[in-house]
Amino acid sequence: MALSKTDVGRVAIIGASGYGGLQLVKLISEHPQFGISYLAGERSAGKSWNFSNPFIEINADIKIDTINVDQIAKVSDYAILSLPNGLASQLTPLLIEKEIRVIDLSADYRFRSLEKWKEVYSAEALNSQRKDYDLCQEAVYGFSEEFKNEISKSRLIACPGCYPTSCLSVLIPFLKQGLIESEGIIVDAKSGTSGGGRNPKVELSLSECSESIKPYGVVGHRHTAEIESIASQFAGHEVNIQFTPHLVPMVRGILSTVYARLRDPGLTAEDCKIVLEAFYKNQSFIKILPVGIYPATKWVKNTNKIMISVEVDQRNGRIVLMSVIDNLLKGQAGQAIQNLNIMHGLDQDIGLPKNTFYP
Amino acid sequence: MALSKTDVGRVAIIGASGYGGLQLVKLISEHPQFGISYLAGERSAGKSWNFSNPFIEINADIKIDTINVDQIAKVSDYAILSLPNGLASQLTPLLIEKEIRVIDLSADYRFRSLEKWKEVYSAEALNSQRKDYDLCQEAVYGFSEEFKNEISKSRLIACPGCYPTSCLSVLIPFLKQGLIESEGIIVDAKSGTSGGGRNPKVELSLSECSESIKPYGVVGHRHTAEIESIASQFAGHEVNIQFTPHLVPMVRGILSTVYARLRDPGLTAEDCKIVLEAFYKNQSFIKILPVGIYPATKWVKNTNKIMISVEVDQRNGRIVLMSVIDNLLKGQAGQAIQNLNIMHGLDQDIGLPKNTFYP
Amino acid sequence: MALSKTDVGRVAIIGASGYGGLQLVKLISEHPQFGISYLAGERSAGKSWNFSNPFIEINADIKIDTINVDQIAKVSDYAILSLPNGLASQLTPLLIEKEIRVIDLSADYRFRSLEKWKEVYSAEALNSQRKDYDLCQEAVYGFSEEFKNEISKSRLIACPGCYPTSCLSVLIPFLKQGLIESEGIIVDAKSGTSGGGRNPKVELSLSECSESIKPYGVVGHRHTAEIESIASQFAGHEVNIQFTPHLVPMVRGILSTVYARLRDPGLTAEDCKIVLEAFYKNQSFIKILPVGIYPATKWVKNTNKIMISVEVDQRNGRIVLMSVIDNLLKGQAGQAIQNLNIMHGLDQDIGLPKNTFYP
Amino acid sequence: MALSKTDVGRVAIIGASGYGGLQLVKLISEHPQFGISYLAGERSAGKSWNFSNPFIEINADIKIDTINVDQIAKVSDYAILSLPNGLASQLTPLLIEKEIRVIDLSADYRFRSLEKWKEVYSAEALNSQRKDYDLCQEAVYGFSEEFKNEISKSRLIACPGCYPTSCLSVLIPFLKQGLIESEGIIVDAKSGTSGGGRNPKVELSLSECSESIKPYGVVGHRHTAEIESIASQFAGHEVNIQFTPHLVPMVRGILSTVYARLRDPGLTAEDCKIVLEAFYKNQSFIKILPVGIYPATKWVKNTNKIMISVEVDQRNGRIVLMSVIDNLLKGQAGQAIQNLNIMHGLDQDIGLPKNTFYP
Repeated sequence: MALSKTDVGRVAIIGASGYGGLQLVKLISEHPQFGISYLAGERSAGKSWNFSNPFIEINADIKIDTINVDQIAKVSDYAILSLPNGLASQLTPLLIEKEIRVIDLSADYRFRSLEKWKEVYSAEALNSQRKDYDLCQEAVYGFSEEFKNEISKSRLIACPGCYPTSCLSVLIPFLKQGLIESEGIIVDAKSGTSGGGRNPKVELSLSECSESIKPYGVVGHRHTAEIESIASQFAGHEVNIQFTPHLVPMVRGILSTVYARLRDPGLTAEDCKIVLEAFYKNQSFIKILPVGIYPATKWVKNTNKIMISVEVDQRNGRIVLMSVIDNLLKGQAGQAIQNLNIMHGLDQDIGLPKNTFYP
Repeated sequence: MALSKTDVGRVAIIGASGYGGLQLVKLISEHPQFGISYLAGERSAGKSWNFSNPFIEINADIKIDTINVDQIAKVSDYAILSLPNGLASQLTPLLIEKEIRVIDLSADYRFRSLEKWKEVYSAEALNSQRKDYDLCQEAVYGFSEEFKNEISKSRLIACPGCYPTSCLSVLIPFLKQGLIESEGIIVDAKSGTSGGGRNPKVELSLSECSESIKPYGVVGHRHTAEIESIASQFAGHEVNIQFTPHLVPMVRGILSTVYARLRDPGLTAEDCKIVLEAFYKNQSFIKILPVGIYPATKWVKNTNKIMISVEVDQRNGRIVLMSVIDNLLKGQAGQAIQNLNIMHGLDQDIGLPKNTFYP
Repeated sequence: MALSKTDVGRVAIIGASGYGGLQLVKLISEHPQFGISYLAGERSAGKSWNFSNPFIEINADIKIDTINVDQIAKVSDYAILSLPNGLASQLTPLLIEKEIRVIDLSADYRFRSLEKWKEVYSAEALNSQRKDYDLCQEAVYGFSEEFKNEISKSRLIACPGCYPTSCLSVLIPFLKQGLIESEGIIVDAKSGTSGGGRNPKVELSLSECSESIKPYGVVGHRHTAEIESIASQFAGHEVNIQFTPHLVPMVRGILSTVYARLRDPGLTAEDCKIVLEAFYKNQSFIKILPVGIYPATKWVKNTNKIMISVEVDQRNGRIVLMSVIDNLLKGQAGQAIQNLNIMHGLDQDIGLPKNTFYP
Repeated sequence: MALSKTDVGRVAIIGASGYGGLQLVKLISEHPQFGISYLAGERSAGKSWNFSNPFIEINADIKIDTINVDQIAKVSDYAILSLPNGLASQLTPLLIEKEIRVIDLSADYRFRSLEKWKEVYSAEALNSQRKDYDLCQEAVYGFSEEFKNEISKSRLIACPGCYPTSCLSVLIPFLKQGLIESEGIIVDAKSGTSGGGRNPKVELSLSECSESIKPYGVVGHRHTAEIESIASQFAGHEVNIQFTPHLVPMVRGILSTVYARLRDPGLTAEDCKIVLEAFYKNQSFIKILPVGIYPATKWVKNTNKIMISVEVDQRNGRIVLMSVIDNLLKGQAGQAIQNLNIMHGLDQDIGLPKNTFYP
């Protein structure tokens, strides 16, 4: 198995048959500067990619392999891990040791403190016996727009969760500049079913989900800790977030509706829009909508964009921030490629869609 | 056109071809104690009901008529109006004068103060030249569980909006007993598309709505005033609510996720569940779920139920209340029949479904 | 556990947690003439019904049990089996022996010939070692409208499959009267996902099914043999059917579009409509639509109805028959109750909905 | 308004705000060899494209104009018309006269005989007073794979309807080679709602369409004549098709299930697959699936592909052909760009997606 193009970055995709893996295979196989060097997937190991996935046909078909670190290292410059929490950190140290730069889509390296991870992901911690404190310290949180410089030089990127990407995109500009109170922030988030992964579950079946919306993980969803950790970092002090996720009868997309109180209640929606525009100036994947235009998740479907809108209720000084992403792209695999572009010294936009096929 | 049963309440349905009207025709035609005495619908006037609506076939077919007050009065004891805002109040005084008891599904009588109505529904106010101050004062807000006594004696019921029914059901018990702060209440509500009515609109087409969720009416949706007005009445002082509705890709159902701060941060979710249970004791349409079980709108689809769940975040003393209803039944026509039962001296449950056909 | 009403038929529901079981529990718990005497379900055994299923709350809560024939026999007059193919026939002989009348929702008794069943359900046959030739001979095919008399006297009813119910309803009138050629009949059928059951499967997840339609079981789906067997019985000679099922992104409903050639090409759509009306005269669950009005599955959702429409292409003498049912009601549990009504000597309509809550 | 790239084909898009127009704007704005020279849309005339369509943002924003033939001719090499039937033929002769090459998405030039068009589109014919017999004769039917040579030289392309593209793709190989009987062909087709266009219609609302499938235009849908006309051309004699379209609760996609009788009943599914593979050798947008793998519309969503599967029922010599397309791409705007590529002397694949973002 040799790459068909010369001078391209060679990328191993580990965990290719889940939804994150499917996006990665499509994006990298069509990317002008990267090629797939290795495909690993437990379930479909031994089979040809194109036979197993006729809807994402790659030019030079590849056999799906089991995970073999030596083999991966021999043919790859980068590895993107789309593995369950607790498993990614079994593989990462071995790959890093072989000088493969790793982009991890799991939660394993999203906390600087391994202890914090063990607290939040306690079940996985029991099974995994992790001791990679240093790698946790070293890993860069892969929210591309916020940590571009660090990402470019890093050998280990912890890609953010889909919910954190969505709500942090609107919280960071206001927290960093001290424009909102850090008390009483509420994130009411809504996600499509693909966020629940590809393994069969009764509660993700069309029969159960269709024609219904429901909250889940109310008070204590694991992404709360991740959101608070990054939010606190930008605020410069502890921030406590009320985060409630909901399951929406659609495949892709996350909408976060974020409520906070302005420190200066005189600010208007237009003022806040200018704050956002200034903060995200020249960020090609972030679009601030005109005041009064609210984003639908459909507007960013199959793209790597974040669309943001802001309102202010002048009766009570509350700001309402709305942010939509495609949970599998900007919320997962798309941001991974964005980071890969940055690590490889390329324009971060390359190979990433900005416009949807509407409707 | 004569009623086929004797001793039943004779009910005129005015505005039969919209979604509210369809529910009313089904429910009343199958009700053991009421019969349809008159069907009025502008669009389908002159046609037979069963021909126009093969999916809701009534035993004794009825011709759909235009609105004729004399004729309605001659054959009816009650009239349920499913008309646009501003139109219902043109007809209501004429019916009341003829001693017809009126249940109005529009917003026309939801405010005690006609001035307030004119402020909130300013466009409709311009066209309608209303002067029925007395009727506004007299009308009873038809949230059956909260105003049962008044409803039983009233000749004019203003049925609540779908969003207000959903979120007031969880706010009233806590506001009335002073258990939550009246500052900083947030209602993040999610509705199916049938809430937008049956008239064709691009933004309600399946092509546009499917696979997407979006906020609308952010800051300033008309239901805000209605929610605040009733919430304030129960709180005993002005309550300011942050209300954000969202459009969900499903036909029926509303979920309200309500955030507030407990006055006593020591209360647990179990404590709050007991508060709800005590408040709604013997209310057959209201079900308080066990702590940790969160309701899906599908659980109440095609029923007149409200399902409620409560969580408390003990890190910050915040309560999260979740409430689901079927927007066209408990949120509209079902509650109208519940009120009709009460007005007619019947058990409020008669003719109203409690269990869904799952899934 | 005692029945709360006197003189009602006592019904055991075996297999209560699947979608068929859920319908049965709702329908029987609300039925004026029947009561649930026993609930068995492997997965949820030991739990209270109402705790496990808050969306279908029964008045006198029941504990879900394991299958215990003696216990079932002691408290029941009837047993409805909602079990996997091959398992129902393990239990049925034991229940029959104890003089329980059995309504079986599986395919186990749908063929008079056990050999034929073993051929069609070969995998199940391997595991089950069936020898109940006599019961296969004795069982009555539970298409209520076609076999009412036999059903009323039978102690074993084999309820039809959902697809067969849908397409046989339009084929039987024309085959029995020799009005269509028995060669070249095509049934193109479309079903919602609930037909695939409640066990988790990747291909039934919302992420995979939503926004997609696909054929499956093309040439050789097991229902082909069932359809052909009954069709041949009514035609009086072997009938060969081309049957293609499709999976539609919706929860409930089956639409069968059936193509055949008229023996007399001079017949019009109106003529064929009259044939259907005459055949199904006084059948309250079957509605023949006016020519030019085509049924949507939504029109019969949550009802026990069959809606039928017919067209004729006069250019080529071909008849196009369209039939919609709710796959879980008329296609499964609703028809079971209809049969139960007949067996108990009641009006077949009791406790079965005819009108949907539109939309 | 000047094109931002040199040496690119300049394309006017007339009718930009419908679903066809939206696809065209996205595809051409991202195409390396074409640029948008003019955007016309009645409804949004005068507005900026990017303001009106934040979900498809083009680099150099363009003002949407009214239709001005002189202006279009001055800046364009090609015009793609996405206009209602009967309107396209008002504009086409004027553009052709000015030496603009026209790709028409309407049905106006799909019949060689204007008389036939007037018969099939009788309502439009009444309003339009067409006399462009010569243009009807000259226009090339734009099914790219079948008429590539003629397309490359033509100045007027009549892009096929979405249904015809889907079912002709599987019929042509067998009809042209005389492998199936031309009698008794049945096309049972299923389409998403976007095929009904963007104008608001009650029957296309999510509330009405969701959770439902229904037939429409049974016997006599206008696409029947188009399918028969092209099928007959390839068969070399009159072919009569039974065509039944159905509305499926999804946005995009068409599945055609096609039934015919093999002349040689000894042919197997594998044989028929080889026929298809040979016929479509080197056609990069057409994929013949392995026998036993059936296509879902989701597999081709947002791509220009046709995926085809074939089965044979050896009991009766009947062939079942299945074909899926994205109705707005290969069924409309994608094929238009494919034709534009061919007309401009480019590789037909350029700028057209082949892989979907699954799921």
